[in-house]
Amino acid sequence: MIVKNYRQVTPEAAAEAPGVTVRWMITEKDGAPNFALRVFEVEPGAATPFHTHAWEHEAFILAGTGHLRAVDGETPFREGDAVFVAPEEKHQFVNDGDTVLRFICVIPLQ
Amino acid sequence: MIVKNYRQVTPEAAAEAPGVTVRWMITEKDGAPNFALRVFEVEPGAATPFHTHAWEHEAFILAGTGHLRAVDGETPFREGDAVFVAPEEKHQFVNDGDTVLRFICVIPLQ
Repeated sequence: MIVKNYRQVTPEAAAEAPGVTVRWMITEKDGAPNFALRVFEVEPGAATPFHTHAWEHEAFILAGTGHLRAVDGETPFREGDAVFVAPEEKHQFVNDGDTVLRFICVIPLQ
Repeated sequence: MIVKNYRQVTPEAAAEAPGVTVRWMITEKDGAPNFALRVFEVEPGAATPFHTHAWEHEAFILAGTGHLRAVDGETPFREGDAVFVAPEEKHQFVNDGDTVLRFICVIPLQ
């Protein structure tokens, strides 16, 4: 068993996303066989890339407010929201509030 | 894409665990191909079963305090902790605080 606080894990800059960091909390290095759990932080006014990929996201909003941008529109989210992004769905997490947006994002291990 | 707040999902009683509820937030019904995301709540003094199974848990503590019971001891946890329980590890989430323990728990779909 492993227990570690996200505050004790060094945040890494997210590729091609100024103002966005990622903490890899549970990965194959911990023995995870199927999926990885990360914590993202997005500064006010920043956003993850508007992109697509072959795997899904299962996210959970811990703090802050923002919206999920898709090809056909935007959906607001807030603390306590679970967010599912299907494989190949183009998406972007946007912080449109004035505080840090923090969320968990789980992805399958390749 | 799906966005839904855990407060809008009806909690279900967890089997063989008085004082424990589960909300199935993202499942195969939402189109999830690999893993399910749930939100558990454990009342003060309550606990999940002390049990084992073939799949892992990747959890994240949202609120409250408690400890993870294992065969060889106990590990305290608090808000902001990520918890990894490997397949076949005997485990129990115990709320030893005086407020509700709330955590996310992700499991692989069978």
